[in-house]
Amino acid sequence: MLESIHHTRMRAALEEAHLAFARDEVPIGAVAVHSVSGEIMARAGNRTRELCDPTAHAEMQIIREICRLECAQRAPEYDIYITLEPCPMCAAALSYARVRTIYFGASDVKSGALTSSIQLYSFSPLHHKPVVIPGVLADPCAQILKDFFAQKRAQKNAVEMI
Amino acid sequence: MLESIHHTRMRAALEEAHLAFARDEVPIGAVAVHSVSGEIMARAGNRTRELCDPTAHAEMQIIREICRLECAQRAPEYDIYITLEPCPMCAAALSYARVRTIYFGASDVKSGALTSSIQLYSFSPLHHKPVVIPGVLADPCAQILKDFFAQKRAQKNAVEMI
Repeated sequence: MLESIHHTRMRAALEEAHLAFARDEVPIGAVAVHSVSGEIMARAGNRTRELCDPTAHAEMQIIREICRLECAQRAPEYDIYITLEPCPMCAAALSYARVRTIYFGASDVKSGALTSSIQLYSFSPLHHKPVVIPGVLADPCAQILKDFFAQKRAQKNAVEMI
Repeated sequence: MLESIHHTRMRAALEEAHLAFARDEVPIGAVAVHSVSGEIMARAGNRTRELCDPTAHAEMQIIREICRLECAQRAPEYDIYITLEPCPMCAAALSYARVRTIYFGASDVKSGALTSSIQLYSFSPLHHKPVVIPGVLADPCAQILKDFFAQKRAQKNAVEMI
């Protein structure tokens, strides 16, 4: 399959996930692209552990960054690429920021709030519902999470064997 | 009715809502109380407009503050007082922060995520579900929002009459 522009952008989000993995954070990454220029304007990986901030998910960081760039509470000209389906916190925040389109990689069957566990944009009275495109590079986006949690389990078992 | 400790704390949250009103922000306020000392450790009003940040709801600011104080992603010894029922973003974040109890004032019939529109803690697979106590000083907490939006409508009508 040819590499589409969406794959290229999701690979940039995956790079952020890999950087998060190296920081011992749950490996989720995101980038924000301006829909007119096509440029990546913000990129982030999960930093909840480093920042002692349970709200420092990748998406929350890029929402804050693009709104800061726009000097506004809304960023309607941005498309967001996230390696994992957003949780309820991030799905709501992406709506408040009025982002145009959300592309995500792996589905989060347990905690995803767009197409999985809670379909927040289907049932709730949010003013703005971004277009949602799931499954962009779903396999590598899921694999990095599997690798991370497998490593965590192995570390835990090693400690228990001491 | 005697003034309970919960009323006193909600009045502190209401003060933050009044300060938000004075800044021309949607007047919602919150405080966080340490459950052992009983002290108010963080207080905030909505600052989405001032900070150009759609995530800068009162609750999100105090979550970040108490986790910063605790140097942790979790703050399980805190009780939160909020003048309005939290939205889905804040309700999820309060769960991630593992706060103990959420006391709120006015219900948000349209966008509330605890007892109104979406009952996030009833239906979703969140790991932690804080205890929820609604209706603390519900009337003044609702009235300040009514006053704010009435003022906004009057300002809009005045502009249209020019």
